[in-house]
Amino acid sequence: MSEKRYLLTPGPTPVPPEVLAAISQPVVHHRGPDFKPVYERTLARLREVFLTERDVLLFAAAGTGAMESAVANLCSAGERVLVVSAGHFGERWRAIAAAYGAEVETLEYAWGEIPAAEDVAARLQELGGAKAVFLTHSETSTGVVCDLQALAGAVNDHGAISVVDAVSSLGAVPLETDAWGVDVVVSGSQKALMTPPGLAMVSVSERAWAGRGESPRFYFDWERTRKGQSTLDAPFTPPVSLVAGLDVALGILLDQGLEAVFDRHIRLGRACREGAKAMGLELFSPDDDRSAVVTAIRAPDGIDATELVRGLRDRFGITIANGQSTLKGKIFRIGHIGYFDVFDITTALAAVELVLADLGAEIERGAAVTRALEAFEERARV
Amino acid sequence: MSEKRYLLTPGPTPVPPEVLAAISQPVVHHRGPDFKPVYERTLARLREVFLTERDVLLFAAAGTGAMESAVANLCSAGERVLVVSAGHFGERWRAIAAAYGAEVETLEYAWGEIPAAEDVAARLQELGGAKAVFLTHSETSTGVVCDLQALAGAVNDHGAISVVDAVSSLGAVPLETDAWGVDVVVSGSQKALMTPPGLAMVSVSERAWAGRGESPRFYFDWERTRKGQSTLDAPFTPPVSLVAGLDVALGILLDQGLEAVFDRHIRLGRACREGAKAMGLELFSPDDDRSAVVTAIRAPDGIDATELVRGLRDRFGITIANGQSTLKGKIFRIGHIGYFDVFDITTALAAVELVLADLGAEIERGAAVTRALEAFEERARV
Repeated sequence: MSEKRYLLTPGPTPVPPEVLAAISQPVVHHRGPDFKPVYERTLARLREVFLTERDVLLFAAAGTGAMESAVANLCSAGERVLVVSAGHFGERWRAIAAAYGAEVETLEYAWGEIPAAEDVAARLQELGGAKAVFLTHSETSTGVVCDLQALAGAVNDHGAISVVDAVSSLGAVPLETDAWGVDVVVSGSQKALMTPPGLAMVSVSERAWAGRGESPRFYFDWERTRKGQSTLDAPFTPPVSLVAGLDVALGILLDQGLEAVFDRHIRLGRACREGAKAMGLELFSPDDDRSAVVTAIRAPDGIDATELVRGLRDRFGITIANGQSTLKGKIFRIGHIGYFDVFDITTALAAVELVLADLGAEIERGAAVTRALEAFEERARV
Repeated sequence: MSEKRYLLTPGPTPVPPEVLAAISQPVVHHRGPDFKPVYERTLARLREVFLTERDVLLFAAAGTGAMESAVANLCSAGERVLVVSAGHFGERWRAIAAAYGAEVETLEYAWGEIPAAEDVAARLQELGGAKAVFLTHSETSTGVVCDLQALAGAVNDHGAISVVDAVSSLGAVPLETDAWGVDVVVSGSQKALMTPPGLAMVSVSERAWAGRGESPRFYFDWERTRKGQSTLDAPFTPPVSLVAGLDVALGILLDQGLEAVFDRHIRLGRACREGAKAMGLELFSPDDDRSAVVTAIRAPDGIDATELVRGLRDRFGITIANGQSTLKGKIFRIGHIGYFDVFDITTALAAVELVLADLGAEIERGAAVTRALEAFEERARV
């Protein structure tokens, strides 16, 4: 294997060197003056990135832990909830809600389809309402980013609590928590927030707070963490090193400005899609500026995506992602979330082109990189 | 505040520079060949440190998360369990078990007392048994380390499942999971395992596995994590950076050898107690070689421990711990877990001596450091 590594998956994502430097500082005590200002600033920066006035609760966990916190705090056994699912992470909502004994209704789409607000409204109408509706903002398994504002609006119209998995979208594409009335937003450190995995966070609206239920919970109990954060005294020893890294990463993100960051992601997605098309590949993701998180591409006829992924890894130290579940071998996915610029895209495309050609695929040589650079330069239209 | 920092609390603890270097490496993908060997080696090293043939399940969480995993996997609502409590962390077991609706019986001791196997046996006899008994190996709030082998034996004699909080003890004092028949052992990265906080782990005996109950759980579900670990494919993105650090830290610990590490902790505890006594202070912890994790010391008459802790911090950048709950201000605690040698003890003692003298305490000057060094040199008797 090549010695140099290129992490071009939809998560974990590359971490800026300043962030790595911050997490490698000597450990400090979590109740002392070396940590409290870092903790306070991190929590404030999270509110800025979440675009909310409410507390953002921070947990040592994978993103799934914060997803579970939403189910455990909101759903009592037997309560009806609706899960909107169009991929791997929608399925995860269903599995967690089922584990808590909720009466789980689903609005299911084929993987790769884009959930629509009208469908959500119709399903809620049909059901006569639901306590909560679980949504996936960016479905990392397919590259689809939904129109969350519209979906959350439909949920609100029916008096339900909207709960959104924004693990791969927050900080990459617009998500206006308070302005759009999204009740619960879940995210993680290891995607657009440019920090190693191990931190998860969740924002909770007043309505969701008032709608908390009776399921057993302790570590993920919202009240316990909110109370601790209110005096900067976390209820359990926080992962001080990762928090120090997140603080630096959020500072980088906010220095760039959310609008500039969203614009860059749109242009990265466009560059990736245009480059892929220029070599004759067919997109699996929608060919749409909203899908700016990960680009899913169909393997050419007769080519197994698993072979492509392995070739990139073994020959060049480049990691991209295979399809998940039934899409394994059929699609491959290039992530462009967080600490990415256009030369990460051209690296991915150049290597994909070479390995596909060597695998015998009929693809256009020499066009992808140039087209990607050109597409990246066009101003974002969104 | 002084620029140099001395982290001398019972957790988080100082982390060796090699471990910090490991966690600051570029992030790698958790399903690829850059991570899987690290993951596999870490899980194997955990089994060596836990002294178990069974899987050690690894979670991104604070130690409390792994404690909750024991309750969530073992206890169904309404089942009777016994919590043995003699301090802050015993109380935590009670709170978690209560949150899951267990019928919680307690065997309560005053903070600082040492739980006895006879009492556990008598209480279980009185109750007519219990599904599980929750124990605290090292009660960090008081400095007491119990005779876990005897306690677990009493639990076994009554057919209950023994569940042990070993967060601050594992890797510092002997804990023979399989040989002593301890069913569930919970620990965390940030104490004797010399890694930043953010990882928690739990070992589960066959008997405990067979005794799993019906409480809702997903992220902390033992089966889900065991299944993922069996193919080195974690069910949720693991905190790859912290795992890389834990791998290095466990390597250091095992290179030194568990027996040598335990011997060093006994001698550190003895040095700390002898030094404290040499300046005329009264111990709160038992004056006993078993209490080798943290030394709790009474504040001298008329002195508020909070003032002492603040003085050490503000004048010298030294962090020690105050008492918790009703002991706040009345005792102070010096941790000596993990990456500690005798000069950390002499630093703590010299500074405590100076600040106490300046606060007007009547203490013996000039004896503590010499006595500590002398006591450290005596061979461990245990």
